[in-house]
Amino acid sequence: MADNKFVYLFGNDNTEGKNSMKNLLGGKGANLAEMSNLGIPVPAGFTITTEVCVLYLKDNKYPTGLLEQIDEALLTLEEENNKKFGDPDNPLLLSVRSGARVSMPGMMDTVLNLGLNDTTVKGIARKSNNERFAYDSYRRFLTMFGDVVLDIEHARFETLLEEKKHELGVDQDTEIDVDSLKDLVEKFKGVIKEHTGEDFPQDPRKQLQMAIDAVFNSWNNQRAKKYRKLNGIADDWGTAVNVQSMVYGNMGENCGTGVAFTRDPATGEKRFFGEFLTNAQGEDVVAGIRTPQPIEDLKNNMPEVYNKLESIYKKLENHFRDMQDIEFTIQEGKLYMLQTRTGKRTAAAAIRIAVEMEKEGLIDKKTAVSRIEPSQIDKLLHPMFDPDATYDVIATGLPASPGAAVGRVVFTAEDAEEKAKEGIKTILVRTETSPEDIGGMDASEGILTVRGGMTSHAAVVARGMGKPCVAGCGAITIDMERGDFTNGSVVVNEGDFISIDGSTGDVIVGEVELISPELTGELDTILQWADEIRRLKVRANADTPHDAGVAREFGAQGIGLCRTEHMFFGEERIPAVREMIMAEDVESRKVALEKLLPMQKEDFTGIFRAMDGFPVTIRLLDPPLHEFLPNQEELTERICELEKAGDNEKEIWEVQKVLDRVDILKEINPMLGHRGCRLGITYPEVYEMQVRAIIEAACDLTREGLEVVPEIMIPLVSHVKELALTKEDVKTTAEATMRDCGVEIEYLVGTMIELPRAAITADQIAEEAEFFSFGTNDLTQTTFGFSRDDAGKFLPLYVDKGILEEDPFAVLDQEGVGQLVKIGIEKGRSTRENLKIGICGEHGGDPKSVKFGHEIGLNYVSCSPFRVPIARIAAAHAVIENENK
Amino acid sequence: MADNKFVYLFGNDNTEGKNSMKNLLGGKGANLAEMSNLGIPVPAGFTITTEVCVLYLKDNKYPTGLLEQIDEALLTLEEENNKKFGDPDNPLLLSVRSGARVSMPGMMDTVLNLGLNDTTVKGIARKSNNERFAYDSYRRFLTMFGDVVLDIEHARFETLLEEKKHELGVDQDTEIDVDSLKDLVEKFKGVIKEHTGEDFPQDPRKQLQMAIDAVFNSWNNQRAKKYRKLNGIADDWGTAVNVQSMVYGNMGENCGTGVAFTRDPATGEKRFFGEFLTNAQGEDVVAGIRTPQPIEDLKNNMPEVYNKLESIYKKLENHFRDMQDIEFTIQEGKLYMLQTRTGKRTAAAAIRIAVEMEKEGLIDKKTAVSRIEPSQIDKLLHPMFDPDATYDVIATGLPASPGAAVGRVVFTAEDAEEKAKEGIKTILVRTETSPEDIGGMDASEGILTVRGGMTSHAAVVARGMGKPCVAGCGAITIDMERGDFTNGSVVVNEGDFISIDGSTGDVIVGEVELISPELTGELDTILQWADEIRRLKVRANADTPHDAGVAREFGAQGIGLCRTEHMFFGEERIPAVREMIMAEDVESRKVALEKLLPMQKEDFTGIFRAMDGFPVTIRLLDPPLHEFLPNQEELTERICELEKAGDNEKEIWEVQKVLDRVDILKEINPMLGHRGCRLGITYPEVYEMQVRAIIEAACDLTREGLEVVPEIMIPLVSHVKELALTKEDVKTTAEATMRDCGVEIEYLVGTMIELPRAAITADQIAEEAEFFSFGTNDLTQTTFGFSRDDAGKFLPLYVDKGILEEDPFAVLDQEGVGQLVKIGIEKGRSTRENLKIGICGEHGGDPKSVKFGHEIGLNYVSCSPFRVPIARIAAAHAVIENENK
Repeated sequence: MADNKFVYLFGNDNTEGKNSMKNLLGGKGANLAEMSNLGIPVPAGFTITTEVCVLYLKDNKYPTGLLEQIDEALLTLEEENNKKFGDPDNPLLLSVRSGARVSMPGMMDTVLNLGLNDTTVKGIARKSNNERFAYDSYRRFLTMFGDVVLDIEHARFETLLEEKKHELGVDQDTEIDVDSLKDLVEKFKGVIKEHTGEDFPQDPRKQLQMAIDAVFNSWNNQRAKKYRKLNGIADDWGTAVNVQSMVYGNMGENCGTGVAFTRDPATGEKRFFGEFLTNAQGEDVVAGIRTPQPIEDLKNNMPEVYNKLESIYKKLENHFRDMQDIEFTIQEGKLYMLQTRTGKRTAAAAIRIAVEMEKEGLIDKKTAVSRIEPSQIDKLLHPMFDPDATYDVIATGLPASPGAAVGRVVFTAEDAEEKAKEGIKTILVRTETSPEDIGGMDASEGILTVRGGMTSHAAVVARGMGKPCVAGCGAITIDMERGDFTNGSVVVNEGDFISIDGSTGDVIVGEVELISPELTGELDTILQWADEIRRLKVRANADTPHDAGVAREFGAQGIGLCRTEHMFFGEERIPAVREMIMAEDVESRKVALEKLLPMQKEDFTGIFRAMDGFPVTIRLLDPPLHEFLPNQEELTERICELEKAGDNEKEIWEVQKVLDRVDILKEINPMLGHRGCRLGITYPEVYEMQVRAIIEAACDLTREGLEVVPEIMIPLVSHVKELALTKEDVKTTAEATMRDCGVEIEYLVGTMIELPRAAITADQIAEEAEFFSFGTNDLTQTTFGFSRDDAGKFLPLYVDKGILEEDPFAVLDQEGVGQLVKIGIEKGRSTRENLKIGICGEHGGDPKSVKFGHEIGLNYVSCSPFRVPIARIAAAHAVIENENK
Repeated sequence: MADNKFVYLFGNDNTEGKNSMKNLLGGKGANLAEMSNLGIPVPAGFTITTEVCVLYLKDNKYPTGLLEQIDEALLTLEEENNKKFGDPDNPLLLSVRSGARVSMPGMMDTVLNLGLNDTTVKGIARKSNNERFAYDSYRRFLTMFGDVVLDIEHARFETLLEEKKHELGVDQDTEIDVDSLKDLVEKFKGVIKEHTGEDFPQDPRKQLQMAIDAVFNSWNNQRAKKYRKLNGIADDWGTAVNVQSMVYGNMGENCGTGVAFTRDPATGEKRFFGEFLTNAQGEDVVAGIRTPQPIEDLKNNMPEVYNKLESIYKKLENHFRDMQDIEFTIQEGKLYMLQTRTGKRTAAAAIRIAVEMEKEGLIDKKTAVSRIEPSQIDKLLHPMFDPDATYDVIATGLPASPGAAVGRVVFTAEDAEEKAKEGIKTILVRTETSPEDIGGMDASEGILTVRGGMTSHAAVVARGMGKPCVAGCGAITIDMERGDFTNGSVVVNEGDFISIDGSTGDVIVGEVELISPELTGELDTILQWADEIRRLKVRANADTPHDAGVAREFGAQGIGLCRTEHMFFGEERIPAVREMIMAEDVESRKVALEKLLPMQKEDFTGIFRAMDGFPVTIRLLDPPLHEFLPNQEELTERICELEKAGDNEKEIWEVQKVLDRVDILKEINPMLGHRGCRLGITYPEVYEMQVRAIIEAACDLTREGLEVVPEIMIPLVSHVKELALTKEDVKTTAEATMRDCGVEIEYLVGTMIELPRAAITADQIAEEAEFFSFGTNDLTQTTFGFSRDDAGKFLPLYVDKGILEEDPFAVLDQEGVGQLVKIGIEKGRSTRENLKIGICGEHGGDPKSVKFGHEIGLNYVSCSPFRVPIARIAAAHAVIENENK
């Protein structure tokens, strides 16, 4: 081990690292070395490798030879700077920073001015001829060292500083005089003694070693561990430590410090963008104690420095071929670069920068596309709160459907529809929504529910509509009788304005200003590039001609899931639907179905028309019939009311009849009940009507010259024979309908794979199914045994405790549910080689799940129309990532 | 193909077949050949092989050479009998019978007297000097040929016969005179002409060919197909055809025909048992037109024939080493055997015969055990209706828990308990039962429910109690207000006697006589032999010391599932349970749990004591908490009542409080809701109390010197981390409790595998679990997506339509659920080699499922105490069948 290299120099001609050594030197260290290699002025320093961190955390001691290598590196720094570490007259001071492969909040950040003590502070004072500067640096050092190395609350120091300013009657730190600073230094040392039981370490080498230990140990603190867990960062990567000679922006007016971006991080505009402070150290800019100046001012203040900075930032951007976030310090007119890294940016900026850089020839299309985080796109497609608005959040629910909305509170779907007619914007607030509420949901600006998770009815429907929704906001309680909802002492009445943010889950009383982010043509460019790259097709889940149209605009290549039951809820349809359900024999059921036929046909016609040339997968009726009837408690209460009123036997009898039916249809676990193809098998006339409507619509349009590709999907198949039986019925009806219409069309009959048994026996099922569509919502429910409607009672706790990393209804559980999907694909294609396979659960729009879908060989994903662009980019990323593997 | 052998002779010294050729010759043909080989008199004949059937059905024509081989065989028959087929003076007549490998109802049975026509009938008359005999045979032949070959309704002939008797004013067929028989013959030929459009075929060879075709075609008729499907008989086995010279039992008083068993098929007693008719043909005995005489009478009537028969039946039993069911005909004092086959027998007889044959040295123990159909045993353990009783069934439900019961109708659990105290026997009739009804179920003689399937609450609990139950009897409607239940016009009032048969699902008004089948020591002998053979251990599911005691008596080797929640429902316990649920914080919940602790401990102590030396698997609390609260509708109605009564604000408020809690706990799909380890994770104090109770009980008994082996089971694990977290809590509590008790005991912590995700990720879970128990009930629910409480709405139809062969809650679905179990076992043992694995669903007591469990390498199955003997035998069968493979 003795000849292992643990320490890498940077900042001079002897620079030993480079950009590609991020794993060993961490991101910060590698970039400091790279800047040095580019001839950019960087204060000399060295990086202790991540390997040392791993060894140290394992053995709890330094590897042999490390201290010698540090000493050697220090010697080089001393020579470079012509100073000596700990020298009473001309001391070298250091900064110590952590630096992992990727930036990681929660780890130890920075200690500046290390090397100061009661002796060296005097040397600095003499050497700089600036006693105030020296003691100001010392008190800063004590604070940072106490805080980040010794783990003493920052406030302990801050309070003393504030007391001192109060005592002196001054506002600014810069107004504190030297004697007071000296006094503070003594007091700070007292705090350290009191807290640690030991004196502040005067020995600079001991300071350095303690700081290095603190960086290593911070790798394993709780916040860092949790962050790693959440972000999939391996525990054994470790962090590097960067030790660097101090440069000072706080030595006078020809000094300063600043941060800047090579392009505008908010808009992506190609302009140098940043801020600086004269006579300040780095943390002052961040802390916001003084208001920094825009970077343009530097051009006037120190034109030479500015010119130098300009040439550097251009060089950096060209070199790294991405927008850079840089930090610099000016010491007595000399510019030093302290950091460069890829700059964070808004979604809009990301897109603009990617497209412009491609145009500039800096990057290729694949790189441009890979720079766009798919989930970021979401924000661009919805209105959001004005970032400058201020507001108080009264409660937070689940961010169930993105976008922000403002409106007056209504508690029923009917009210929402009523108000919409009057032109009044509303937010529909419900304990939970049911299919009956769809009209009201559509009429409102947004939806807020007390119960239900990310795939509750409200969430799914809202996402489908592209409507903001905050779901499962358990903190509020609705009182329908009083007509208000409350959270503790906060009371919100019907008609009051509220604002909700479906991207964060926030609920706000009053009207928050909304902005609609601009949809630039650049997004379209990126999406087209993504389309050129991706293999996976992207379809949309849409139940109406309108949604199908939106989906097509967003680039959907067909409909992956058209839920026919959503068509049953229209105001003029529900009576016929209920008649069908109340029917006591097949004949009267057929009469009711006859009434529904033209309505369904009209829907299909509209959807086929919108999707001309693309396939449309239509799922036959899926939910249990009781979903279409009023609920039991309401009916029971209604009867109670009627009885109290008296003299209305007939009315009571009518309600009682419905209640009896509800009672018969009632299920203990409707999710696992009489639904899906089980309905089709017990009431074949229902599917027959639907198939007839589909085929008639398709025939009509084919005659018009449109290209219609219906894919009829049988839901909830668990056994191949269910499919075989239903498929036979479908084919019989389809053939008969085509004969009646005198038109011959192509169509497929396939199934949803949404039950574990279907996945396990997919080889048998594929012998009947002409396509598969994985219904990953239901598959997640049955695989985990989680009811999506009820899981809200424990799922948040599960994610909190780290039992699950993510809500499996939002991000596909690859280990469990994903394995079943894989098994289903393999088995399915074992008996039908070219089986077309997609997924149509909520996961179809989640980037991670889309990538998984690409890897396991899906043909397409299908998601809410508003998530189609996200899926298009995620699908392209999957290709790019596989190429880079 | 020309030299293929299609036809095998039997009944003379040239016999070409033998017993081991069943696949080729069918069961009947092989046994006829075997009897011939044994020198037993069999009318000469030949068998056309099953291969011919397969070829014929495939190509729709006879294979080349068949007709020649038939002609050749006919020649041999003619020589043997010294008659000629179709000869006008001395015609040979034939019988034609089907005969597959296994006996198969639904296929063509028998045509007798084939070869008769308008000419040969006269020859027979002359030759036998018995014109009446000749025309009686002819009209019989026309009827049978018309019925089974030409597919003419039997009634068409029967009606004419009845009319004739009416016309003649006689009662018996034997009283019809010759002329009338001749007239009937003409009329019968008319019927045939009318029905087929063609004359009755006079050509004997054409008759023979048509009969052979009819046998072949009957292989593919609907009834036969359905029977094969239900019984797992391959469609490509085909049937053989047996063509045999006729012998006549109807030629006079020195003639006769009979059937007999070599031992008593009802009791198993070793005595010759049978019946015969003089002057009759075989079908007369079966048709029951005349009352046959007991076989003993033959000893007096025809002693020589009887002695001959006695030596034959003894030879046959010794040869086949099993009780035989034989058919014989006596023609003019000469005995002919027409059939021998293994005789059907009752469960009691099966056991007695098996044990006695082993004692006699005829068979070994393995053979004895393999002769006992495990499911037959069930009947021996429960009372049943007197087989001689007559009664009308007013409705039939599911045979949910075997045994019969008689009692007065009650509609509430309270009434059942009340009446039991008065010594009145009741049948509890409920729409469905809930855990609250347990006391009443226990107090009643049997349970009848309107809703619910084979694994509904009522069914599961009743089977556990060994109490008869008819479930899901949808034909009846309960009206609680009137206090009756009805099925159409049948009204049964509270207090009326009814009888139910849980083995058949029958419901009868009034008292049917019950008998308790004797439990002989021979069953015990068989069970002990089974224990010597089997590898699989058998445990019982039991929740009380009493049930544990019963289980041990039935031979259980431990408890595989002790459901702790069943202990929560005792009258004196439910208040503390509700207090626990209504608790609004941890502290008040702990107070309520403190009250439950001693009760739980007492239960565990009793169970451990009963199972001294055997392991006891205890499942921590599993059901959702709302199951312990009154139901919502009841509470809503109660409030309505109270409001109508007025002036009772406080009472309303109390009920409202419970209703609010019920409302909060309410779940849309409780099966997939907040239950199992999800409860343990959200309310760790509940599991803590249970673990404390378990370990305290175990420590106390260990101190007493008993051997206690607790296995603590965490339910409903879907992710290994749920188990890891809960296990840590369990271990902490267990260690602390042992420290407090000052006793150290061994215990295991394992999990139920009852969710698909758990099976798929069993490798991870086995890293934490010290044992697995497959909860195949819930696994079936989630794998199929079937709620066992709701599946009654479509599952019967599924079985009817053949979508599913069996109710997957009764017989494990090996293709789907079974695959997940296999995956779970393989993955589990991949990370923990010696993992102990059992199943504890209802399937643990189903013979097929037990055999599957043996094959896939389970360590044990666990079932209701009353099914333990069944599982013991099934486990032995699994070993024997594998050895014979």
